[in-house]
Amino acid sequence: MFIGSNTDWEEARLAIIGAPMDCTTSFRPGTRFGPGRVREVSEGLEEYSPYLDRSLKDVAFYDVGDISVVFGDVDTTLARVRDVLEETVELGKIPVLIGGEHLVSLPAIEVLADRYEELKVLQFDAHADLRDEYLGQRLSHATVMRRVVERVGAENLYQFGIRSGTAEEFYFGHAKTHFHPDTILEPLRDSLTELGKDPIYVTIDIDVVDPAFAPGTGNPEPAGCTSRELMEAVHLFGCLNVVGVDIVELSPPLDHADITAILVAKLVREILLGIWPKQVAGLPQAAQKYR
Amino acid sequence: MFIGSNTDWEEARLAIIGAPMDCTTSFRPGTRFGPGRVREVSEGLEEYSPYLDRSLKDVAFYDVGDISVVFGDVDTTLARVRDVLEETVELGKIPVLIGGEHLVSLPAIEVLADRYEELKVLQFDAHADLRDEYLGQRLSHATVMRRVVERVGAENLYQFGIRSGTAEEFYFGHAKTHFHPDTILEPLRDSLTELGKDPIYVTIDIDVVDPAFAPGTGNPEPAGCTSRELMEAVHLFGCLNVVGVDIVELSPPLDHADITAILVAKLVREILLGIWPKQVAGLPQAAQKYR
Amino acid sequence: MFIGSNTDWEEARLAIIGAPMDCTTSFRPGTRFGPGRVREVSEGLEEYSPYLDRSLKDVAFYDVGDISVVFGDVDTTLARVRDVLEETVELGKIPVLIGGEHLVSLPAIEVLADRYEELKVLQFDAHADLRDEYLGQRLSHATVMRRVVERVGAENLYQFGIRSGTAEEFYFGHAKTHFHPDTILEPLRDSLTELGKDPIYVTIDIDVVDPAFAPGTGNPEPAGCTSRELMEAVHLFGCLNVVGVDIVELSPPLDHADITAILVAKLVREILLGIWPKQVAGLPQAAQKYR
Amino acid sequence: MFIGSNTDWEEARLAIIGAPMDCTTSFRPGTRFGPGRVREVSEGLEEYSPYLDRSLKDVAFYDVGDISVVFGDVDTTLARVRDVLEETVELGKIPVLIGGEHLVSLPAIEVLADRYEELKVLQFDAHADLRDEYLGQRLSHATVMRRVVERVGAENLYQFGIRSGTAEEFYFGHAKTHFHPDTILEPLRDSLTELGKDPIYVTIDIDVVDPAFAPGTGNPEPAGCTSRELMEAVHLFGCLNVVGVDIVELSPPLDHADITAILVAKLVREILLGIWPKQVAGLPQAAQKYR
Amino acid sequence: MFIGSNTDWEEARLAIIGAPMDCTTSFRPGTRFGPGRVREVSEGLEEYSPYLDRSLKDVAFYDVGDISVVFGDVDTTLARVRDVLEETVELGKIPVLIGGEHLVSLPAIEVLADRYEELKVLQFDAHADLRDEYLGQRLSHATVMRRVVERVGAENLYQFGIRSGTAEEFYFGHAKTHFHPDTILEPLRDSLTELGKDPIYVTIDIDVVDPAFAPGTGNPEPAGCTSRELMEAVHLFGCLNVVGVDIVELSPPLDHADITAILVAKLVREILLGIWPKQVAGLPQAAQKYR
Amino acid sequence: MFIGSNTDWEEARLAIIGAPMDCTTSFRPGTRFGPGRVREVSEGLEEYSPYLDRSLKDVAFYDVGDISVVFGDVDTTLARVRDVLEETVELGKIPVLIGGEHLVSLPAIEVLADRYEELKVLQFDAHADLRDEYLGQRLSHATVMRRVVERVGAENLYQFGIRSGTAEEFYFGHAKTHFHPDTILEPLRDSLTELGKDPIYVTIDIDVVDPAFAPGTGNPEPAGCTSRELMEAVHLFGCLNVVGVDIVELSPPLDHADITAILVAKLVREILLGIWPKQVAGLPQAAQKYR
Repeated sequence: MFIGSNTDWEEARLAIIGAPMDCTTSFRPGTRFGPGRVREVSEGLEEYSPYLDRSLKDVAFYDVGDISVVFGDVDTTLARVRDVLEETVELGKIPVLIGGEHLVSLPAIEVLADRYEELKVLQFDAHADLRDEYLGQRLSHATVMRRVVERVGAENLYQFGIRSGTAEEFYFGHAKTHFHPDTILEPLRDSLTELGKDPIYVTIDIDVVDPAFAPGTGNPEPAGCTSRELMEAVHLFGCLNVVGVDIVELSPPLDHADITAILVAKLVREILLGIWPKQVAGLPQAAQKYR
Repeated sequence: MFIGSNTDWEEARLAIIGAPMDCTTSFRPGTRFGPGRVREVSEGLEEYSPYLDRSLKDVAFYDVGDISVVFGDVDTTLARVRDVLEETVELGKIPVLIGGEHLVSLPAIEVLADRYEELKVLQFDAHADLRDEYLGQRLSHATVMRRVVERVGAENLYQFGIRSGTAEEFYFGHAKTHFHPDTILEPLRDSLTELGKDPIYVTIDIDVVDPAFAPGTGNPEPAGCTSRELMEAVHLFGCLNVVGVDIVELSPPLDHADITAILVAKLVREILLGIWPKQVAGLPQAAQKYR
Repeated sequence: MFIGSNTDWEEARLAIIGAPMDCTTSFRPGTRFGPGRVREVSEGLEEYSPYLDRSLKDVAFYDVGDISVVFGDVDTTLARVRDVLEETVELGKIPVLIGGEHLVSLPAIEVLADRYEELKVLQFDAHADLRDEYLGQRLSHATVMRRVVERVGAENLYQFGIRSGTAEEFYFGHAKTHFHPDTILEPLRDSLTELGKDPIYVTIDIDVVDPAFAPGTGNPEPAGCTSRELMEAVHLFGCLNVVGVDIVELSPPLDHADITAILVAKLVREILLGIWPKQVAGLPQAAQKYR
Repeated sequence: MFIGSNTDWEEARLAIIGAPMDCTTSFRPGTRFGPGRVREVSEGLEEYSPYLDRSLKDVAFYDVGDISVVFGDVDTTLARVRDVLEETVELGKIPVLIGGEHLVSLPAIEVLADRYEELKVLQFDAHADLRDEYLGQRLSHATVMRRVVERVGAENLYQFGIRSGTAEEFYFGHAKTHFHPDTILEPLRDSLTELGKDPIYVTIDIDVVDPAFAPGTGNPEPAGCTSRELMEAVHLFGCLNVVGVDIVELSPPLDHADITAILVAKLVREILLGIWPKQVAGLPQAAQKYR
Repeated sequence: MFIGSNTDWEEARLAIIGAPMDCTTSFRPGTRFGPGRVREVSEGLEEYSPYLDRSLKDVAFYDVGDISVVFGDVDTTLARVRDVLEETVELGKIPVLIGGEHLVSLPAIEVLADRYEELKVLQFDAHADLRDEYLGQRLSHATVMRRVVERVGAENLYQFGIRSGTAEEFYFGHAKTHFHPDTILEPLRDSLTELGKDPIYVTIDIDVVDPAFAPGTGNPEPAGCTSRELMEAVHLFGCLNVVGVDIVELSPPLDHADITAILVAKLVREILLGIWPKQVAGLPQAAQKYR
Repeated sequence: MFIGSNTDWEEARLAIIGAPMDCTTSFRPGTRFGPGRVREVSEGLEEYSPYLDRSLKDVAFYDVGDISVVFGDVDTTLARVRDVLEETVELGKIPVLIGGEHLVSLPAIEVLADRYEELKVLQFDAHADLRDEYLGQRLSHATVMRRVVERVGAENLYQFGIRSGTAEEFYFGHAKTHFHPDTILEPLRDSLTELGKDPIYVTIDIDVVDPAFAPGTGNPEPAGCTSRELMEAVHLFGCLNVVGVDIVELSPPLDHADITAILVAKLVREILLGIWPKQVAGLPQAAQKYR
């Protein structure tokens, strides 16, 4: 269980959901161990964030556990993710998904796009993931954002930190999406006003961070941002109307001394603390009952 | 390419086929890297076997390479294995399959059972693999021999070295198959006469060997046979009419210093040398042309 | 929780207790992770033992969890072990302790010697552990059996598999204890009649097994017994009146691919199944209620 | 022996002292191997620092070796550290302590506070270490700076780089100590005038550096400073009146390719070169005799 | 084969050559596995560089494979490197050498200095490598740039990022070569005009990068540049008249999760794309035929 | 220093000599770390052998340290080994060489063959090492015993445990040397009478042992003997007139948890104890002075 999780599903307003899907990974599998490892290392974290001066004690979230994956069956697995997300969203809770491979973002975004017509998607990633198909498959970690584009429209996709892809992906990105190669912090800051209070889904592929800071991922891509920059980006989420988040592609078997898993766990903590509604946080009495 | 492979597919009578299927593995994936690693370490082997006093130079075999796997799709992957096997067998060549997970044995055995009515299957394995279903799936590494039983009949399945399973599997085995728990060498020797010249398919799950000798596998089971015992068993294949072989469940990421991969490679060499027809081997002139 | 553990402490007659003590280890610490890792890998085991044709479903045992260790304080930690053992034994339950370093055996044996005047101790170990002091300390993994001798008398200590120690330890052993260097199975068989129905405490230091089969331990000693021999020895416990067991010195950080942890978990399963009273096991109706 | 160590204790004015204490570590032990590994990798360093244009040949320091630790006994171990430090300080030598866990700083600071009434302590650390107790213990790596505060007064503690702790620790820090969360270099530069020529004890917990640069530590905390920033901070020590230094919490078993150990060794070199009195260094003839 | 390599040696204008020399390494060997590992991980790269908006499809290069090394014989090995380089250069092709230890640069630079009288050498390295001899040998990875100085003159050697060496090396560097300690990007930019269109040989020791980004090397040196800075430096090569390049000292056994190997592979891609003559690249029709 | 080493070279009658030669290794280097690692792990051994009931305290041996190796220069390195051996043998001391690659045996055997006309060589090895040349070199770990045959005559070479080689090597062995493939213990026992009191040089390639027991070597060969069998073989050396011993091909980087290094260290201990002249050992007074 993620550190500080509430024990009461009813009262929780944020829901941590593990999605250890690892089906379309063709090289170096391991993301299936992601959610479990994040929970384990979360034990070593403090509940208090000095950055936000807020504690998990004041946030009513519930760690739902893992969605059961059928390893040989992509369609069934995606359907299960969709089911869980639908139920969560219908109950008015904000899902915080921990992957698993990037493909888990697709059903999550579909569910939220069903609910919020004007949904915008923010993607932090080293790779564009805009291919139309990959190794003959249309559903893959390398095509996931193309499928997202088909669902929410390219004009509602904001991509940050992209530094690898085919020429076609880059030309597509530059032409159609809000495409910010290489850097994350400045373009995010510049987008805040435009994003305003629209409903936002955030998907973070941990490989957006440089492999020095996040070696535990399947396709490490040199020359990325620092973990500190991503942390600062996450701290800006409090300015937005975030209705769903995922953080994907952590692969514990490729990690060293858990430094990537700890980074993901800390980002999850900052996300939970950051997107927790201020008015609630400002009312200690109200918050009290969630402790 | 496996050491000593012929360059001519036409003339080859034995075919090495990699089947890096790793789809239904729910814990600790890695068998997808098996065939590749076996080829790499085969470079360090001698072509000559002092046990059989025979060299790969005298054996016309061809390393076909790997069957392309669709990681999220068990059915498609099994169909591909079946296709390649059918073509191989139709051309009169004996397939030597390198896994991959144990489920790859199923299409291979089906293809050979189609061709040889009276096919018998010899299984060397720590686990019975006789469950009817596993985690809700009927096609799994844990159910594969039950599917085989349904195809060839329990009376044609010979199981050696089994030391783990449910009570149901053991009761089923004792009642219906030729079931030899714990040991491999004596019961194999005792079965030779009975097996006679019937067509034989051999499937070797490398976990039949004790984890001390073969740590590189997903479900290591203590108290197994030694690598030397399995080598001796393999040397008996020359007495049988072997029409197909597989060796599965090597998981290189779990191996140490390649000792399991080297063992598998050496077993493959001994299998190639052992099942190569004596009359051909006895005719150096004939063999010469395959060099 | 160890696989198959009952959920009802009251009805349990066997108690698994983790003692992750790792205080006096001067080189290569790690036994503190032993009990936890054994529980984790136990998930991969079957509940059914084909050796004993019995299942954990028929055994009423309860996994108590770990005793909390104070890492800088040997005395307090040993006192806690003693407390938990006393309560367990008073309730008529048989403790099965998982270490931790070998020193945890001392309070366990003291508690059982208090209860059973004629207690005999069986030690399976590569090392004699008979020093009077070690690095100036009288309480250490290297002195533990000397302390045991002081409590139960040298004539009640049976040592098997010893293959390393000082000359003094070997002379002491040969002169005073039932001392069986190097081998375990034959001398155990020869001792069965003599041991009869006396109350027996068994302590297994996993390093009695050869490092090939059990690399995950702090002081691996070459030329030990095989895991199969130790398994056979454990299967003889059913003939004895075992009132307490421990298995110690597993060090997961030194293990490879969990082969030592899996071996320990399997030995624990066989111990639970083996020492479970036959009359109870023979009464399916009675056993039924513990399922 | 640390590279370039003098062979004459009498003439040495700086003393390297290993304190491999690893007693209160409840998770992932390993700091006990810190001093030894630092010495080993120091062999690969040059004696010359291009940053300071000075060589260890001109610095009279002596590597005393390790203080013997009693692993099960915190009090005895701390007393031994205190003894060695007292003797060192009485002889007018500056101690450079290599840990070991952070708790070793306590006796060192106590000894120096006895000698220098107005002692100030500079702490570089990811964690505040200001808890009053931790897991029921008042002496722990998590409480060490609270004990220091009790000895030297909160107003004499300067904390740099702190980025993790409980709310209580952060409120305490902000209210009472010179508390500089997150960054190290700017606040250190700003403090130089204030620190003036007062006697300074510096304690560096290597986890102040980001895990990318220093993975080999027990509690890696993402979003830290770079190794280059810490190196620059160390280069400022030459402006201060440093009377004692420690560098702690290196855990070699968690390191990769020794990069953390090499960083610590290089920091020790720069510290030795940096705090060596200028007037001595300026007198080549005098320095000559120490070569 | 490096990703995107042409199949036609005749038409290629750039030649990748592996030089797995690993002869004078006295500690932690492993660079012999460098070229092989770079090729393997290159499979995971895209052929398209978003930084340069150019693809390997438009670059006519050929991966020659590895030069065969005689491990016990430095002279023979260097002679072989020289032979291959001479043939390559005579055919008008630009060599891109992948090491192997740094000593392989020597024959390459000698060959190019024979051809281009006014050859200038750019060295990116953590170490000066300017010793006159090392452990009694004049040919060593630690002396290689001193030998280069003897061949091309100190005034033609530009050194960037140097942060370790003896005092003698630093004094020699400061006095005689274009010596830029510590940083790489600014001094390279400042040198561009001076370098103009003179023929340039670039040698990159991967340890110029900080160990956080490039742990897989024999002598990691803390406080180096980031991988992003080196990437930017490489992107400036397009402004220069580069006639030969090498990138050396990658040691895969010391790497973690291949992050250093992937960095080297990506740098090789950027080098190939960057130094490919603009006029050719600007003529898609011409380039077309190399696809 | 190996545990229990005397401090007085003059009085020593046995000399441990490290020969970390690792020059002709083309794949997976690492034997250069062999002697150092054996010394380190020897610290964990007891000085007393319960097998021989004798202690290193009673054996006057001296650990000479390592011969300095020139990594790029086979001839110089072999000449150095020869020099050290000559001096050792001239002083009447028995050399116990720790490798390093197998080629170090050659100069040792040459020196002893110069002194003892009728020298016989006992080789324990997985590989015949009888090639005439390997990769174009006549001096290699794969040709070393062929060179030995040229020096002492094939009739004086006894080979045990050989299980890999070319057909030519096996035919040569069977025809000319005392060739015992596969097993070691029985053929050694059978040879004792024939060997009588002739001067014997023993060379042990640790890969004669199965990789399960000795994974830390460059060319592990499955289906070898157990460590216990080699230990028993070593215990027979006391019956022979051993004038020199080596134990080679330990490669610590390929080892796991030091189990191979500990095995080698223990074998060295048993060799020292076993070949120590009985008459001396039988005279405690005489032995006393060597303590």
